[in-house]
Amino acid sequence: MRPICFLSDFGLADDFVGTCKGVMVRIAPGVSVIDLTHEVPGFQVESGAEILQHATRYMPEDAVYLAVVDPGVGTGRRPVALRSRSGALLVGPDNGLLVPAAESLGGIAEAVQLTNARYHLHPVSSTFHGRDIFAPAAAHLAAGLELGELGERIAPGSLSRPESPIEDEWSGDEVSARVIDLDRFGNARLSIKQEGCALEYGDELTLDTGDGDMAIRYVETFGAAKPGELILVPDSHWRLSIAINKGNAAQALGLRLGSRVRLRR
Amino acid sequence: MRPICFLSDFGLADDFVGTCKGVMVRIAPGVSVIDLTHEVPGFQVESGAEILQHATRYMPEDAVYLAVVDPGVGTGRRPVALRSRSGALLVGPDNGLLVPAAESLGGIAEAVQLTNARYHLHPVSSTFHGRDIFAPAAAHLAAGLELGELGERIAPGSLSRPESPIEDEWSGDEVSARVIDLDRFGNARLSIKQEGCALEYGDELTLDTGDGDMAIRYVETFGAAKPGELILVPDSHWRLSIAINKGNAAQALGLRLGSRVRLRR
Amino acid sequence: MRPICFLSDFGLADDFVGTCKGVMVRIAPGVSVIDLTHEVPGFQVESGAEILQHATRYMPEDAVYLAVVDPGVGTGRRPVALRSRSGALLVGPDNGLLVPAAESLGGIAEAVQLTNARYHLHPVSSTFHGRDIFAPAAAHLAAGLELGELGERIAPGSLSRPESPIEDEWSGDEVSARVIDLDRFGNARLSIKQEGCALEYGDELTLDTGDGDMAIRYVETFGAAKPGELILVPDSHWRLSIAINKGNAAQALGLRLGSRVRLRR
Repeated sequence: MRPICFLSDFGLADDFVGTCKGVMVRIAPGVSVIDLTHEVPGFQVESGAEILQHATRYMPEDAVYLAVVDPGVGTGRRPVALRSRSGALLVGPDNGLLVPAAESLGGIAEAVQLTNARYHLHPVSSTFHGRDIFAPAAAHLAAGLELGELGERIAPGSLSRPESPIEDEWSGDEVSARVIDLDRFGNARLSIKQEGCALEYGDELTLDTGDGDMAIRYVETFGAAKPGELILVPDSHWRLSIAINKGNAAQALGLRLGSRVRLRR
Repeated sequence: MRPICFLSDFGLADDFVGTCKGVMVRIAPGVSVIDLTHEVPGFQVESGAEILQHATRYMPEDAVYLAVVDPGVGTGRRPVALRSRSGALLVGPDNGLLVPAAESLGGIAEAVQLTNARYHLHPVSSTFHGRDIFAPAAAHLAAGLELGELGERIAPGSLSRPESPIEDEWSGDEVSARVIDLDRFGNARLSIKQEGCALEYGDELTLDTGDGDMAIRYVETFGAAKPGELILVPDSHWRLSIAINKGNAAQALGLRLGSRVRLRR
Repeated sequence: MRPICFLSDFGLADDFVGTCKGVMVRIAPGVSVIDLTHEVPGFQVESGAEILQHATRYMPEDAVYLAVVDPGVGTGRRPVALRSRSGALLVGPDNGLLVPAAESLGGIAEAVQLTNARYHLHPVSSTFHGRDIFAPAAAHLAAGLELGELGERIAPGSLSRPESPIEDEWSGDEVSARVIDLDRFGNARLSIKQEGCALEYGDELTLDTGDGDMAIRYVETFGAAKPGELILVPDSHWRLSIAINKGNAAQALGLRLGSRVRLRR
């Protein structure tokens, strides 16, 4: 039995997550479900895509990824399942959520649309495909069903990509990066990786959030900064984050999810 | 080993849920625990009863339901365990929490009061029967213990029912319904099912919350409504909910848990 | 396979807990993880130590305790693993978090520093040893690895203890106790156990929080008190808590985590 890695924006205040788990355990008794997080900001497909992509580095190789951040539920967006070249499986809406993870897992080897009604729960609700379409598909895959049984094969190239890339690249000594996540402490995760940033701890950079240039220092940890200092720091996802030691960078700088900033080294 | 479906109003801020799980894994090593939800509003037995009843539709058939919403802990209310005609088992306080679920599972075949101290953790606390009485009972049942071992048989007819029914029926073209759940977006779940409402999507109804008649439209999804429109919409529990598209119905209409509303089709 | 009992101050808003679980399931497929709580107040080592110690009473005997409340991550504090005389295993930072639990499990039989890089995830981040050092160690132990494989043996006597003891003792008829936990209702858990308090339900005591003497009554449950009454009540950890029936004792008395109070019987 494969383990299921489950990500959603359902939160834990309701019974959505628990109901999906019941559905999965009923189909695949004894299946192991790893809750990656259920607190993706509501409907933020790109935040979900980045968290899922990062998780592929730490989850079991044979995992089935069940990801549900689905603002388009009830519209025409396709429910899909993918097999990566590494052999992992991914289930969710075709809205850009799954593709970055699949690419980190070696690329997409096979994709199907979840058209086989035999593997849906009936009646299928208009608003809760997590329960009625996605969780059953993930559980059947965990229990050994062939991907092709779930529906018609579709071309990997036809799958939706995230609207904005979750990786931005340096152009010379500058990069225009996006805020792709904000935590409750006001730390702003950027669309750039630590790897390849060509910086050394202690380097001074220039940050422009739209109001002119500010000095920002690249440090290894919060502990290396003075209280109140604006810092660029590698975070748990091996990305660069803007932070203020013992302060709230998002508030101080007016940063929001999707904000663009310029960094110059 | 049967899976355990666990519902409570403990929240996740403390170690209550984790402690109950430790107790269960110690008694039944390897048992699979499905957290249905631990965010039932504090002491709201009827909300818990409705969530539990709905869950029976999606949980494994051999599940042991462990449900703890227990304002009467430390008073005379009985701790009980039930076997449904479908073969599921249910454990919790005798305060109306379990009976609607048991009825959805075919009715109550057998009921016992948890009087056998051999299956309690000692000392038994006055306030945390979840840990000391209910979780051990659920775990022993999951591991195969006969229901009758847990205590004295009691008459199913002697069990408490919810004070107000969680289902209300249409009388002609009218129904008086109760708000049985409010989510964080202000959507108000009613005590009436979609099934049997004899409505078609697009129908206009009249809603009276106590301040006179308002128009409300029955739609399949939020997407079918205009921003700000008052709608009646089937929800994840296959019940009818009062909602305002991109608004907060509970606030706008002054609805609270237990509020009575009148609908006329 | 041993079960893992996991405590942290990570919260559930991010993917920290889920990532650690992925790491564990990858190393030890099928391992059972019991989430004790992830809502230890941020960096409050003593609160974590008390919760972990209390949990030892209810967790499986062969549990591996994984505990991460780690304000010193990235500094010189040692990552360690312990074996208790009862046979349980404990993994976490050497900052006082583990020792009270190990003592409740019969004392420390063996201790190692987690120096064997073969059991770390690489690269090891400066800030997330939960994922890169502690979770892998716990999973390898759960899967049967010998403690000594994880690193160099260290002297149990060299391990850090909590700064303040989590138990205070009566001196004659008086005790100076600390507030070691505050729940969301304002109930203040004290550093004294019910066992050995030599009180009977109904006894009147004197409480001094720094502003002079107040009367406080020792009762078995909230139900035994009048609304608004100041009470001393045994809590779910078998400790004495200061509470106000249907009120907020922390607010009314200005109590905070670490506050000292005097009780006289």
